[in-house]
Amino acid sequence: MELKEARERIKILEKQETAYRHALGLLSYDGATQAPAGTAENRGETLAILSEAAYGITTGPEMTEVVATLLKHKDELDGTERRIAELKNKELTELQKIPVEEYVAYAKLLNEADAVWHKAKEENDYASFAPYIDRLVATQKRIASLVAPEKDPYDYQLDQYEEGLTREKCEAFFAALRKEIVPTVKKVVASKQVDDSINHKPFPIPTQEKLSDELMALMGIDRNHCTISTTEHPFTTEFTKYDVRITTHYHEESFLSSLFSVVHEGGHALYELNVADEFAYTCLGGGVSMSVHESQSRFYENIIGRSEAYAELLLPVLRRLFPEEVGGITAHELYLAANKSEPSLIRTEADELTYALHIMVRFEIEKKLFAGEVTSKDLPALWNALYKEYLGVDVPDDRRGVLQDSHWSGGLFGYFPSYALGSAYGAQILAVMEKDFDVFGAVRKGEITRINDWLREHIWRFGKLYKPGELMEKVFGAPFDPTYYTDYLKKKYASIYGFDA
Amino acid sequence: MELKEARERIKILEKQETAYRHALGLLSYDGATQAPAGTAENRGETLAILSEAAYGITTGPEMTEVVATLLKHKDELDGTERRIAELKNKELTELQKIPVEEYVAYAKLLNEADAVWHKAKEENDYASFAPYIDRLVATQKRIASLVAPEKDPYDYQLDQYEEGLTREKCEAFFAALRKEIVPTVKKVVASKQVDDSINHKPFPIPTQEKLSDELMALMGIDRNHCTISTTEHPFTTEFTKYDVRITTHYHEESFLSSLFSVVHEGGHALYELNVADEFAYTCLGGGVSMSVHESQSRFYENIIGRSEAYAELLLPVLRRLFPEEVGGITAHELYLAANKSEPSLIRTEADELTYALHIMVRFEIEKKLFAGEVTSKDLPALWNALYKEYLGVDVPDDRRGVLQDSHWSGGLFGYFPSYALGSAYGAQILAVMEKDFDVFGAVRKGEITRINDWLREHIWRFGKLYKPGELMEKVFGAPFDPTYYTDYLKKKYASIYGFDA
Repeated sequence: MELKEARERIKILEKQETAYRHALGLLSYDGATQAPAGTAENRGETLAILSEAAYGITTGPEMTEVVATLLKHKDELDGTERRIAELKNKELTELQKIPVEEYVAYAKLLNEADAVWHKAKEENDYASFAPYIDRLVATQKRIASLVAPEKDPYDYQLDQYEEGLTREKCEAFFAALRKEIVPTVKKVVASKQVDDSINHKPFPIPTQEKLSDELMALMGIDRNHCTISTTEHPFTTEFTKYDVRITTHYHEESFLSSLFSVVHEGGHALYELNVADEFAYTCLGGGVSMSVHESQSRFYENIIGRSEAYAELLLPVLRRLFPEEVGGITAHELYLAANKSEPSLIRTEADELTYALHIMVRFEIEKKLFAGEVTSKDLPALWNALYKEYLGVDVPDDRRGVLQDSHWSGGLFGYFPSYALGSAYGAQILAVMEKDFDVFGAVRKGEITRINDWLREHIWRFGKLYKPGELMEKVFGAPFDPTYYTDYLKKKYASIYGFDA
Repeated sequence: MELKEARERIKILEKQETAYRHALGLLSYDGATQAPAGTAENRGETLAILSEAAYGITTGPEMTEVVATLLKHKDELDGTERRIAELKNKELTELQKIPVEEYVAYAKLLNEADAVWHKAKEENDYASFAPYIDRLVATQKRIASLVAPEKDPYDYQLDQYEEGLTREKCEAFFAALRKEIVPTVKKVVASKQVDDSINHKPFPIPTQEKLSDELMALMGIDRNHCTISTTEHPFTTEFTKYDVRITTHYHEESFLSSLFSVVHEGGHALYELNVADEFAYTCLGGGVSMSVHESQSRFYENIIGRSEAYAELLLPVLRRLFPEEVGGITAHELYLAANKSEPSLIRTEADELTYALHIMVRFEIEKKLFAGEVTSKDLPALWNALYKEYLGVDVPDDRRGVLQDSHWSGGLFGYFPSYALGSAYGAQILAVMEKDFDVFGAVRKGEITRINDWLREHIWRFGKLYKPGELMEKVFGAPFDPTYYTDYLKKKYASIYGFDA
């Protein structure tokens, strides 16, 4: 095959892959939003058949020949083409090392594990789910040994969600966080608590829905390419950069819950919507990694959304939509209510300060599981001990403990660290951004799109063109340094709770 | 290939086709319901790629060999297998006779025509759409001459939607209808008009939504496999028999509009949901033809839904949901309001009596177009003259005239007669059903599922196992006879408007 032909063929193949991603994404989204309850099995059939067809394109002889041709002419490729060829080659090589039977058995195992986990959580029955943890870890270690025999299997997992991340890097990172966050949490606990009673008043859901639209407008989200709907757990999904869906969950007596969900998912959406058009139908379309994605969503949710400036921007909107509920609250009081911190049991409900501690519990457990130091039977006790140690809370049952997250049943070992890493990236992004303009001044004036412009210029438009660590270092103009994050947290919570940072 | 292998392969191929139908159906449904406005182009890309892949399965070498093998062993096949082999062979032979370029050009033309028609209707600009009518008719005639050179091209079109239907049969059918319906309409117009003022009172839409759920429950629709949502124009779509979606459109000041839409679409849904499980992943899954489908939807909507017995069943429900709006109305008054008849301009808003006249206008025009007796430039004048002749109304503009329906822009020439034919089938179905049990007695008692049981037994479960005409004759135990329909209409409207039938 000539280079010219390979260049044309890769475009066609990637367009085909994009079409399957779109359909598969929509099928899943439909399952989570609108589909009637009895349709899961039928949808499973369709997902399996289309996934297999997509897999056939990704690993087939044509793709193999095209990628080989591109790599043979590596020196003639431009930067974008080279990155595409490398990513496709990585994917191809890895997938081709996994025997089809292993691949199919793993997909089946995941399906089963998910169903068992749902029931186990509902019934607080860890024992029924436990064997799946061992089977999943064993399968993933086996796959890692086939695909990357030179690597530590947990490093292989981490690299799936954050190219280049290792256990060692995580350990250093979490040690730095722990050292600063744990004492800060203790100071918060010992301080006078903030008043968040406004967040326990009933806010009518139809008006909360209107608020969501206003929040999305304030963020400059293009509604021509992004909808919002409701689900049990909020999420963002992008079929392509031209079709992004966010969801939220309304609680009548906790309006801040959906408010910050919308801002969080809105951050994910902005990232996807603003990848350069030229990457749309290629493997470079979309956010580069989970950490960078969380760095954007958590940046909007916490650094911007839970700032005093944002409370000032929001208050007139809330007063207009909820005149009675909001009453005479000041922007500062709203800011305090939005930042109430309290060690708790559930990760997804954790505040900004304690959040990373929840992640650390999971990281410690995953590390030990993959090192063979513990097995599923040790997990509840280990989980509860770590929650006591890191957060000082007693776990009353496994439903609110080791069974709470869906990640492990989905095989997502190595995924959790990206949440914490993304949060820390955000603080360092803020420091760089503030050199260019008055970020919170812009927020106060309602000019959030100035932030969007900056992030589009420095991060979003590049899609997956650079490795995530590489991209972050380009943004920072320096190595990643978690001190920005710990300093940010200490300063913020010292000011809110009135102690010395 | 051995018969044994062909039997296994056809199942796999049909499962694959079903999966693509599911995904393509969901993409279109998403476009019509939830998708943000700016996503059409991207969705078009995905639809094109997946359609091509599905086309590849349907017409590919494997399917060709499998079908040939099955047909070679025709005598060893059971009835179901033989029908599948015949249908797949028909599809294969027809598609293989169309050059790929012609197929692709036609798909593009349809896409374009649809967009132009939308704009033309909005702007009342027939001239911009007219050339597409000529191009579409020319393309369809060319395709018909390739696929079925022995056939009249309009007969070929009719056969697409109703296997075995011809222009000649339609002409006889419509002549029979015209002869009876036109004088009945004149009598209605000359009579004292019924009072439908209840249908112009405001009925709050959230409560209308609750009513939809109750209507679906009354009809025995399995909500585990069927949802309802809202769209500009109501429709039913089935991804498979396990996943059916209906839509409606709420008008605050015309609650009967959505009410009868739900009952109509509910009829379509019941048909799809109740095809035998064994056909689910084959080409026999789903309703057999448009006419038979309309015979079910219009049966529930008009024959059942607009009966006095149904008004009696409905009234307590309406009183409970809309106590103030419904007030002291009697079941008989509700029945009259639901059957107000009035010659009008818009087909989709037409009452049961005048509906067929709207269809006849379209049939006359299509016939002349395909016979080359008229071209697009003649259509507005012809349309307006026929509306004057059949319905006695003056068409004020093309938006409410020749541009009103989406069918022609979608290439659906030959589709309209199925609406009228389905209505007529319904009346003859009723006559047979009444021999078995007291249909309206069952409605009065709320036992609509008795009707479902009968229709499941005689029609639904068979899917596409028999040709539509064949199936109907089996049901009737006699040839189709439109007199049942005209007698039904004459009797019903004579009683409502108080004249001699």
